[in-house]
Amino acid sequence: MNALPNPLLREAAELSESVVRPIPGSRKIHVEGARADIRVPMREVVLEDTPSTFGVEKNAPFAIYDTSGPYTDPDYRVDLAAGLPALRAAWIEARGDSEALADFTSPFTRKHAGAHQLDHVRFPNVPKPRRAKAGQNITQMHYARQGIITPEMEYIAIRENQNLERIREQHLLVQHPGESFGASLPKRITPEFVRDEVARGRAIIPNNINHPESEPMIIGRNFLVKINANIGNSAVSSSIAEEVEKMVWSIRWGGDTVMDLSTGKHIHETREWIIRNSPVPIGTVPIYQALEKVGGVAEDLTWELYRDTLIEQAEQGVDYFTIHAGVRLPFIHLTAKRVTGIVSRGGSIMAKWCLAHHKESFLYERFEDICEIMKAYDVSFSLGDGLRPGSIADANDAAQFAELNTLGELTQIAWKHDVQTMIEGPGHVPMHLIKENMERQLEKCGEAPFYTLGPLTTDIAPGYDHITSAIGAAMIGWYGTAMLCYVTPKEHLGLPNKQDVRDGIVTYKIAAHAADLAKGHPAAQARDNALSKARFEFRWADQFNLGLDPEKAKEFHDETLPKEAHKTAHFCSMCGPKFCSMKITQDVRDYAAKLGTDEEAALTAGMAEKAKEFREQGGEVYRFD
Amino acid sequence: MNALPNPLLREAAELSESVVRPIPGSRKIHVEGARADIRVPMREVVLEDTPSTFGVEKNAPFAIYDTSGPYTDPDYRVDLAAGLPALRAAWIEARGDSEALADFTSPFTRKHAGAHQLDHVRFPNVPKPRRAKAGQNITQMHYARQGIITPEMEYIAIRENQNLERIREQHLLVQHPGESFGASLPKRITPEFVRDEVARGRAIIPNNINHPESEPMIIGRNFLVKINANIGNSAVSSSIAEEVEKMVWSIRWGGDTVMDLSTGKHIHETREWIIRNSPVPIGTVPIYQALEKVGGVAEDLTWELYRDTLIEQAEQGVDYFTIHAGVRLPFIHLTAKRVTGIVSRGGSIMAKWCLAHHKESFLYERFEDICEIMKAYDVSFSLGDGLRPGSIADANDAAQFAELNTLGELTQIAWKHDVQTMIEGPGHVPMHLIKENMERQLEKCGEAPFYTLGPLTTDIAPGYDHITSAIGAAMIGWYGTAMLCYVTPKEHLGLPNKQDVRDGIVTYKIAAHAADLAKGHPAAQARDNALSKARFEFRWADQFNLGLDPEKAKEFHDETLPKEAHKTAHFCSMCGPKFCSMKITQDVRDYAAKLGTDEEAALTAGMAEKAKEFREQGGEVYRFD
Repeated sequence: MNALPNPLLREAAELSESVVRPIPGSRKIHVEGARADIRVPMREVVLEDTPSTFGVEKNAPFAIYDTSGPYTDPDYRVDLAAGLPALRAAWIEARGDSEALADFTSPFTRKHAGAHQLDHVRFPNVPKPRRAKAGQNITQMHYARQGIITPEMEYIAIRENQNLERIREQHLLVQHPGESFGASLPKRITPEFVRDEVARGRAIIPNNINHPESEPMIIGRNFLVKINANIGNSAVSSSIAEEVEKMVWSIRWGGDTVMDLSTGKHIHETREWIIRNSPVPIGTVPIYQALEKVGGVAEDLTWELYRDTLIEQAEQGVDYFTIHAGVRLPFIHLTAKRVTGIVSRGGSIMAKWCLAHHKESFLYERFEDICEIMKAYDVSFSLGDGLRPGSIADANDAAQFAELNTLGELTQIAWKHDVQTMIEGPGHVPMHLIKENMERQLEKCGEAPFYTLGPLTTDIAPGYDHITSAIGAAMIGWYGTAMLCYVTPKEHLGLPNKQDVRDGIVTYKIAAHAADLAKGHPAAQARDNALSKARFEFRWADQFNLGLDPEKAKEFHDETLPKEAHKTAHFCSMCGPKFCSMKITQDVRDYAAKLGTDEEAALTAGMAEKAKEFREQGGEVYRFD
Repeated sequence: MNALPNPLLREAAELSESVVRPIPGSRKIHVEGARADIRVPMREVVLEDTPSTFGVEKNAPFAIYDTSGPYTDPDYRVDLAAGLPALRAAWIEARGDSEALADFTSPFTRKHAGAHQLDHVRFPNVPKPRRAKAGQNITQMHYARQGIITPEMEYIAIRENQNLERIREQHLLVQHPGESFGASLPKRITPEFVRDEVARGRAIIPNNINHPESEPMIIGRNFLVKINANIGNSAVSSSIAEEVEKMVWSIRWGGDTVMDLSTGKHIHETREWIIRNSPVPIGTVPIYQALEKVGGVAEDLTWELYRDTLIEQAEQGVDYFTIHAGVRLPFIHLTAKRVTGIVSRGGSIMAKWCLAHHKESFLYERFEDICEIMKAYDVSFSLGDGLRPGSIADANDAAQFAELNTLGELTQIAWKHDVQTMIEGPGHVPMHLIKENMERQLEKCGEAPFYTLGPLTTDIAPGYDHITSAIGAAMIGWYGTAMLCYVTPKEHLGLPNKQDVRDGIVTYKIAAHAADLAKGHPAAQARDNALSKARFEFRWADQFNLGLDPEKAKEFHDETLPKEAHKTAHFCSMCGPKFCSMKITQDVRDYAAKLGTDEEAALTAGMAEKAKEFREQGGEVYRFD
């Protein structure tokens, strides 16, 4: 390892050591599809037996949706400088509608590739780009509309089902019927259902053909609610190695996609490292890099330069682009009287450009040209909400909804080109105004997936905005939002560190799962049931391991009761052995079982005699301390 | 200070040093009522001026509801061994309907008072107890129903208004009309409104005449949503000094009431220290102590022993009692098939008693006797939900709702005695089942205030249950819950430490405020507006200080940009100087102002000429880095 040619590679090798440890209490499994090259990873938690009066009850292992990629697979040797295996490469090639290019299309990329002063930050073996053959459309939406079920769709069907049959049998003791507000949640996800949802634009599969390392996943209101984590360096902070580490860290905790929002030095090179090592789709906001290219002077942006940036990033493998094409010249004045004006970076850049030139946005005017680029690589649109509210005061105002209408209009254009499209949403919204956002989005954008940032339900808690926004995120997820963009505790204050990223992601997994439960997503409640059963039976390790963050749960438990023996104790530190209500309930049940009857029978029979027996037998149950 | 007679007193004196520091950026003010002895404390945040192109705009100070008591008043010398001043003593005496007793009524208390082995843990000067004179009813509800406006009610009206006129003038630029689901929120809280709400049972003022140190506050759906923090030692952990420290710490962050859930050694003595030093109402669950008195054997509980415990605690000054009188014998079998049985400690103790004796609960049967005690001291009921669900699976089941119906029936009995009453609620409930809880409670319990624990909206995140439950708490607060019992990150895992208490409280302040906003509570949005304006204008210190946790906000900001100069910087670490969207918006506004017109006019006039000017003038605005 000492032979590594430069500090970045040495750093990358070291990082790999810190991110490969398996998640406690679980093992990587792969569920095979109809063909051997479809192997869907899941994380299986092995559970302890339940001891009971009559012997032992087995608890089946529990499979959990796994975003962490090969990093948590002990059989996989991580090598960040080599990148991940290109698991989709054969599928892409087999379709025969795209081709490898001899060189990169973007002059910017070619210039960077030849600049020796960048050698020390460059990913070692940049793959050659692919592009659709002339006249071909290679988007998953296009295939779907032709009636073709791709391997990506099969993969997704297996992934979304999460061993549903087994779960139903073993862990789904009961599930509340949900309130889905008109979603169409099938009892079982089939590849055909995936195809149909993509065909009608109600779901997207963000996977650029230049990111064959990605494990297919889907974003749509009739699937599990997904979450996105933002990473990215800025002028003020962060290095390439740190950003790669943050990406791996994000997916470890459950990030379904990662947006690279870098605005600092070496944007291009950082992105290459991230994409080559990412098993989840990567999103970007290309206008950030375009602005860098013109030295930060928004007025100097041009369509040509922006276009080149799209191609540069598409050929690296970015899976979705945030494009603020709805920030139109006639809407900008609607923000003048806001408490917090325009808070989207991309939105404000475009607003400034429009005002400076007194012209309509080139993103809006060139939208069909952008579609041509998107469909040549299968990059999905994430139509940006550049005029989203930045405060409770500005929620649901004329500027925001004017832009949303435009996003609906642009969705229709994108769909005409079979380009996959999702819509970004706010922002800061008090609880009672959240539903209107969802309803309007569904109506105006033809059910294209909604992808919201929070929303924050109050402005008064800087330092806790992962929580102010998780409230809104859970609610809007329930109402129909397909993906939630996380917010970390550092929002509005600073750049998130690793701990903030973990807090943000786990918080958003909570919001997403609470939404799945409330919608009545099939088998969503199985994990709650399995965990609550473990809790009730004092299977402490199972309770930790079935949770979203086994390490923190164990750490918190051990703060008060550190000994190994306490992991099997039939009490906990909150109440101590005498006061444990769960223990009392268990005693009540054991008593009923011992009598060969249940409490109901005992009660309705009015057995004063039995009560006496119980007192005699049970009077000692609390005396073990 | 070296003369302090024992270690506990020395510890207490030391604690006082650590809790008196003022909250950054704010000062204690007192708003006087119609009479000089009504002085309502508030915390005033002094704001910086807003610099603008045309000079300076003043930002009026912002008053915040303050639960922290004299501890944050630099003019007050804390002495935990002396306790707080008895601010309500004169009001209580002046009413002439209660009398000081020569000694404590409870034999238990008298025995403890005489036990020298307890001297080292005893509060130094225990005050003599008061009780209603024979035949008198001294509850605030009784006064209210007689048409009497008490000083407590006047105090509350001022407290709830929070300088409303001034806020309206200066900070309430705009507020969204809320959706209150039938609440009656007046534009301004008057003493008469307080009286009327208490008279009809829709709000309670928990303030035992033996807790004259308490600053009056109100719990009801037509007032600000309140939060409760739980403290309490257990057999496993904690000392008296720690518990007093936790109480002071809880109110510092915004706890409106504190429940002492101690179950370990020296329950009686710990409680005395807490009450004598608490400016907020203290709640308890008397069955915990009763169970200690019978060595933890639930079957050995008797009405006589429980009654003595109620009197013991009422004469110490406990403001509300959780009483699980709705756990009736015929309901217990309804829990047999639950995933998590009975999870309430009090509920399971009573269930065990009922089963062991095969008798109806003595709490239910003796409910009128309990009312007689409550009204002699003005202790409020918090009717416990002993059969609340302990998992998502068990939400909204027959056991839970059977108990709720009984609580409604008991509310009517309590009201017959003019005893103030609130109702406890769940628990674990998925989002789509939350509303049913609120609606049933309002209907069955005649709008008596609802007081819920969360609810947690999923079971899968041990270590993050402050968040799983804040989602449910915000929603149920919006629907009409009057007080939210906090949940800390340690829930289900261990005993909360100071950091957990802070996290739990701030999280619940968020939920309560989000609820106030969504309900449309008058002027709730003023704080969001003031903070967002500060944020937009890069008044960093104001942004921190207007937040729920100024210390954490500053600490987070300083992690990335530590220098003092950065507190006035017109950018932040997330985007750096070039990419700041807020800065761009401000530039746009400044530009419009400079032209003597606004963007709207500029745009509708179609000024290509002006655009050129802007480009020439504004091209440099990003070049300061």
